[in-house]
This record gives sequence, structure tokens and C-alpha cells, in this order.
Amino acid sequence: MKYLVMKSLKPSVSALFAAATIISGSFIVVATSFADTGGKVAAPSSLNTTIVNKAIVENEVLDAQRAWGEALVAISTTYEKDGIETAKALAEKVIDEAYGYQFGTVLFKPTLTVAPHTFRTTRAGALSYFVGGDPDFPMDKGFALMGWRTVEIKNAAIFISGNTATTMGNVMLTDKDGKTTTVDKTWEFLKDDSGKLRIVLHHSSLPYTEE
Amino acid sequence: MKYLVMKSLKPSVSALFAAATIISGSFIVVATSFADTGGKVAAPSSLNTTIVNKAIVENEVLDAQRAWGEALVAISTTYEKDGIETAKALAEKVIDEAYGYQFGTVLFKPTLTVAPHTFRTTRAGALSYFVGGDPDFPMDKGFALMGWRTVEIKNAAIFISGNTATTMGNVMLTDKDGKTTTVDKTWEFLKDDSGKLRIVLHHSSLPYTEE
Amino acid sequence: MKYLVMKSLKPSVSALFAAATIISGSFIVVATSFADTGGKVAAPSSLNTTIVNKAIVENEVLDAQRAWGEALVAISTTYEKDGIETAKALAEKVIDEAYGYQFGTVLFKPTLTVAPHTFRTTRAGALSYFVGGDPDFPMDKGFALMGWRTVEIKNAAIFISGNTATTMGNVMLTDKDGKTTTVDKTWEFLKDDSGKLRIVLHHSSLPYTEE
Amino acid sequence: MKYLVMKSLKPSVSALFAAATIISGSFIVVATSFADTGGKVAAPSSLNTTIVNKAIVENEVLDAQRAWGEALVAISTTYEKDGIETAKALAEKVIDEAYGYQFGTVLFKPTLTVAPHTFRTTRAGALSYFVGGDPDFPMDKGFALMGWRTVEIKNAAIFISGNTATTMGNVMLTDKDGKTTTVDKTWEFLKDDSGKLRIVLHHSSLPYTEE
Repeated sequence: MKYLVMKSLKPSVSALFAAATIISGSFIVVATSFADTGGKVAAPSSLNTTIVNKAIVENEVLDAQRAWGEALVAISTTYEKDGIETAKALAEKVIDEAYGYQFGTVLFKPTLTVAPHTFRTTRAGALSYFVGGDPDFPMDKGFALMGWRTVEIKNAAIFISGNTATTMGNVMLTDKDGKTTTVDKTWEFLKDDSGKLRIVLHHSSLPYTEE
Repeated sequence: MKYLVMKSLKPSVSALFAAATIISGSFIVVATSFADTGGKVAAPSSLNTTIVNKAIVENEVLDAQRAWGEALVAISTTYEKDGIETAKALAEKVIDEAYGYQFGTVLFKPTLTVAPHTFRTTRAGALSYFVGGDPDFPMDKGFALMGWRTVEIKNAAIFISGNTATTMGNVMLTDKDGKTTTVDKTWEFLKDDSGKLRIVLHHSSLPYTEE
Repeated sequence: MKYLVMKSLKPSVSALFAAATIISGSFIVVATSFADTGGKVAAPSSLNTTIVNKAIVENEVLDAQRAWGEALVAISTTYEKDGIETAKALAEKVIDEAYGYQFGTVLFKPTLTVAPHTFRTTRAGALSYFVGGDPDFPMDKGFALMGWRTVEIKNAAIFISGNTATTMGNVMLTDKDGKTTTVDKTWEFLKDDSGKLRIVLHHSSLPYTEE
Repeated sequence: MKYLVMKSLKPSVSALFAAATIISGSFIVVATSFADTGGKVAAPSSLNTTIVNKAIVENEVLDAQRAWGEALVAISTTYEKDGIETAKALAEKVIDEAYGYQFGTVLFKPTLTVAPHTFRTTRAGALSYFVGGDPDFPMDKGFALMGWRTVEIKNAAIFISGNTATTMGNVMLTDKDGKTTTVDKTWEFLKDDSGKLRIVLHHSSLPYTEE
């Protein structure tokens, strides 16, 4: 399992060329080069605009969602192969890399929690939810240990604003027996200083069923 | 249950006084001179600092939450007093003023919706959820018509980033018979160009109950 | 001269499909369409992902820069052909469409202003700088009336964060006599609620020359 | 000249209390406590909403500006007392702590630079500007070594959007001989993951003087 580290420093060469090409018989030139040798627009080799982009693009969101699903399955299979301690270590790594507890808190309402521990605003609370075994959260059985094999994500909508992106949709989790659980799920991702997307909000709930 | 900090939340008032060099006469001068030995700082009388602030502060979030609760109760009581048409008109006004459908969509998962209409990403879907009567959403009975009298909001955590703020916590709705329904609720607010907070995400769910 | 209105609601179909390319030999699927029949994903045919994107991408920045240059040239040529009143009306239109004075202020330090009117934080101050004739700003001769014919923009760096993008570089303005003026220029653009980029900061200065 | 809108700048403390003040005779309660002991709303001591705030507030901006001025004076006096090597080490520390080169680049146009080294988008270029001695930037004499004693900052306007804040105004630098240099200066600050403001844009220029 690899978490991709998004580079915040992107050349975006093709995009720049696409934009700089235009100049339709007109006079306005948006160039990006200082090595302009007399001609109207510089050569490719002289492109030297530095771009730092802290905004989020859609592909980064989809990648982060996929990484979450891969991590869940990885914890399940690690648990089965290597036992709870290895699975727990992996869960800690996942939480530290994919969530934003280092910012101070995460708004996390997991699918199966109940009061008074509904909201897992601390790292310990998140870890207990995924792998259980924490006496402070006695109801937790370890959601990530439930034999998950596939995770499918269907976004109803995505809202990108600034350095955050929020998604809402269904997530279908299928276990080793082929049983599928569908949840309604919302995530908000923040792009951190290193360019990595981190989950700052995670609200998951079972679909409403009329009594 | 004790959650940490508020580390980024600083008491504005004292800090502002510490930083600001007084108000001389009529105009506000925000100067930041140090090594200020009494008369060193001579601010021209014409210099005033204009501040445009598109970031969200906490009290704006609490105000927006309260406004949502007030609106829900108002639709209920309007329905009882003035009938469905007046209630529907009010609900439309509330949606147009409190939600962000004009941005293109809202990530709205109401408490009681079911597939295939779980997510109400359109204004019509939101209106139907609140007041019913739309044949495109035949299951909707009108959530805002259910006799609500009080709304209490208890935030577990708030995450402010840029021009958005996200909250997670419990909302307790009590109806005219004194029956209280508790939901797990997440909201994300965006400050629009006019400075008004709008709901761009709303995920509400009934607490999980073990079978 | 057309100002392009950036759509904030983008389908981004190709990008989404590129990303959704489903993890060969693996199990995680990030789908964005429910109309997907045949493959693993068996979903309701009506659900498609709606995306609202308030973040800025590079091309939008380059387009906004180019639009500024085109507008400057347009005011110059309009002045020569149609006189000051028409040029002034155009300048007002440009300011209202390309700058962000409606947010409360713009941080505008034009190239040729002097104290006590160095900073043009009001619309009136900006208009006077471009077309002159305002007794409140007696030094202004109308920068946009100076016979500009071409504008070339060379970005040294671009910084995109959230719904804003900041650029720094040289701008070369050439007039009808072929004389070129080079300035050091910084712009910050904000994407407004309609998806349009607006200048919220504009600092322009002549290059430093050693005495 | 008077604008000062400050409309989004509300005194947080009183507003928060106002919000928590329980709406007597009404029904909407925005509480922030889960330690609700039967009564309507909990006491102040039980307040336990966790808040993470990545947005910038004005006093943070003023603090960061003042820190920049203090650092400049500190480099000057360190140079005089302890020599160039110690001053250079301090300048490196200042750049690493106050600027955002770790994000990939900074949009830095110092007051006295000339082509082809006008823009100092790299850390090395910034360091050379402040303390000189870099053969790659042969014109640099070390701006921070010029005997600065006081720095006064007068903001014309501040624009806060999301996790960034941009300021524009005059900065008056006075040296040990009492000679004052006034510059037109723009800064953009970004709040980093640790909550620290970093300069991501710095455009400084001498006032325009008519020939």
C-alpha cells in the first residue's frame, strides 16, 4: 500500500502551453519565460515560471478516497494474516497519514458508534474504532477487522473550495463472504503543507430505514 | 470526556490592543510600529486601514446554526397557523437564503431520505424534503411540517479553514408533544461574496442502534 | 473585448474518467457515474457526480492576466477613436468586471501614483488613475490613455492557495510609437461566487535604478 | 478619506456569550457542551467544543508584520556587534521562519533589486538580498546590513481570504543616522499547518518620483 504524496510544486507545462498558445492575431502575450529571445513567445526550454498550487483538484480527491478504501482492506487482510498487533500498527500508520488529527481534531462520526462515544475527535478514538481493544471505548469491536475485501465509492457530489474538498455519496463495502454494506458517507479533505490530502471530516451513517 | 485545546483561537481583544496604536481623534490608525519611543510614530491623518475579511469566525458559525434551527421551527409553526402554501413559500425562502444551491449543488443528506433519493443535491430535492408534495420525491412527508418547537445544537468540534467552517455534533429537535429526536449532524458553511454563511454540506443521520 | 466568465460548475468528465480507471488487478473502485453497466459497478442509472469547484487553476489566472492587458489596450484605442467619455465608460466597466471593489476595497498601488494618493483603495481612485479628470486626484493624467498597443506578461512565479492566486513578474507595455515600458507587477486574483476571477491586489512599480 | 468597513470583524467574546445565552422565552439553543446536566445549557466550565481554526485574524497579521520589522533591525544590530557571519546565520533563521520558501517558492520583489535578478523566488536569492556576499547575485550589498534601527508599518488595506491575508501600505525604515526611507510594500501571509504565518508574497518598491 502506497500513499501518494501529492506534489505541491507542479510544472503544469502542458497547461501553460495550452494557455500561452492563443494570441489570436492579437497583441496580448501571456508568456512564462524570461529567456525570451526577441521573438514573441519563448521556446519550451526556457519556461521558468514557478508555480505553487495549494488548491485541490478533482483527481487528488478521487485518489485520496481510493487510498482510504485500500487502507481499510489492507487492515482487514493484515489482521487475518498477521494478527491484531500488526493490524493495529498499520491502522495507526493509516490514521497518521490519512487523517488530520495533528491539526488538533478531526470531525469523525464513524458508522457504528453510539453515545457517549459517537464522535471520535481524538486519534485514540479513531484507532479504537478501527481495531478495538481500548477500554475507554468499550463498545468498539474493530470496524477494520471485519474481513473487508472491496470498497466501492460513488460520489453524488463534490465541493471544492480553496484548500479543501468535500465529497458526499455512497460507499459499498464487501467482506470476504461477499456480503455488501452500503453507507452514506461524507468526507472533507484538506491539502496540507506538504501537498498531501488529509481527512478533516468523516461522517458515515447507515441508510435510514423506515420502521 | 475532555477534548483539548482551541490553540488557534486567540483572544482577539487583548491582542488587538497590544498590536494597535491607538485611535487618535477621529480616524482609526492601525499602526504597527515598534521601537516606538513616544513621538516616533506620526501617522498621517489620511491613512486608514480598510479591512476586508472573507474568513469565518466562530460566532458566525453559531449564528448560522441557530438561524437554521429557528427556520425549521418557523416553518413548522407557519404550517400549523397558515397552511401548506405559506409554509412552502417560507421553506423556499429559507433554502434560498441559508443553503448554497446557487453555487451549483449542495451536498445534502437529510435524516430520513432513502435511495434512490438519498442525496438532495438540487434545490427541488431539498424543498421536497422539508415540505413534501413533490411527485419526483414520493417518499417525502415534509420534515419541517412535523410540529417542531425547539432545536438544540451541541457541537462536538468545529473546523474552520479559509472561507469555510465545518461543524459536527448532536442536534436535538423537540416537537409540540415534547418528544425529542436526536440526530448526528454535520454542516459545512461557506462565506459568500456578500459575507453571508451558506450551507454547502449537510449530512444528518439517526444514531446507530445495535440490532 | 470579452471577459470570460469562468463556470464554477464543471463536469470535468475526462479528468474524472482518467482517474476512475479502476485499479487493475485490485478491488478499489472510485466511480463517478451510476450509469455504469456491465462492469463491477451496478448502480442506479440516474446518479452522476456534480462538482462545484471554487479553487483556481493556472489557466484561469493566465486568462485573467490577458484580459487585463486587453482591457488596457482597449481603453487606449477607444480613447483615440471615440474620445474621453467613451473611454471613461469603458474603464468603469473594466474596473467593475475585473477588480473586486465590491468586496469593500482593493489593494491597488498603481505604477505612477504618489503620496498622499499612492494607494487606490477605492473605485473612484482606480478610475481616476486609468482615465484622469478627477479633482480629488489632481496628479492623475490617465494611465490607460497613453496610447498602449501591446501588453506582454512574463510571470516569475504564481502562488495558488484556495480561492485566490497571486502572480509576480514583468509586464511590458508598448505604446503606439513603439516605446516599451517594463514594470514589476504583482496581482492577486480571487474567484468570486459566480466563478469569475477578480483582482483584489495590484502592486505595480517601475524597476529600481541605482542613482 | 475614510472607509474602514471592518464589517466581518466582530468581537468574538461578547458574540459567543450572546450566542450561548440561551434565548430566553424562545426555543433555539446553541450550546457547545456535552456535559449538559439536565438543565437547558451547561455552565461555562463544561464547554468542550474542540475548535481548529486555520483562518487568519487581523492581529496575527499585525504580529507577523511587526516580527518582520524586528527581524530586520535585529540583523542590522547583530551585524554591527557580531559581524557578518553571525548576521548571516540570523538572516537564514529569519528567512526559514518568516518566509514560505519550503512551499516551493516565494513571490519576492525586494526594494532594490534589478534585472536579471529582480525577483527572488529562491531562498538563496532572498538571503543574498538581505546580507549580500553571493556571487550569483553580484549587485547585492546586503539590505539588512544598512544600519536599520526602527521600522514603522502603516497599512492602507488588508484583505483576508481563507488561510491567507494580504496587506498593502507604507513601511518607514529609519537607520542609525536617523535617515528614513519610505517604501510601498505588499505582503501576503499564509497560515501554515502549525498555525504560523509565513510570507508567500513580498513586493516592495520605492515611491514613484516624477522626473
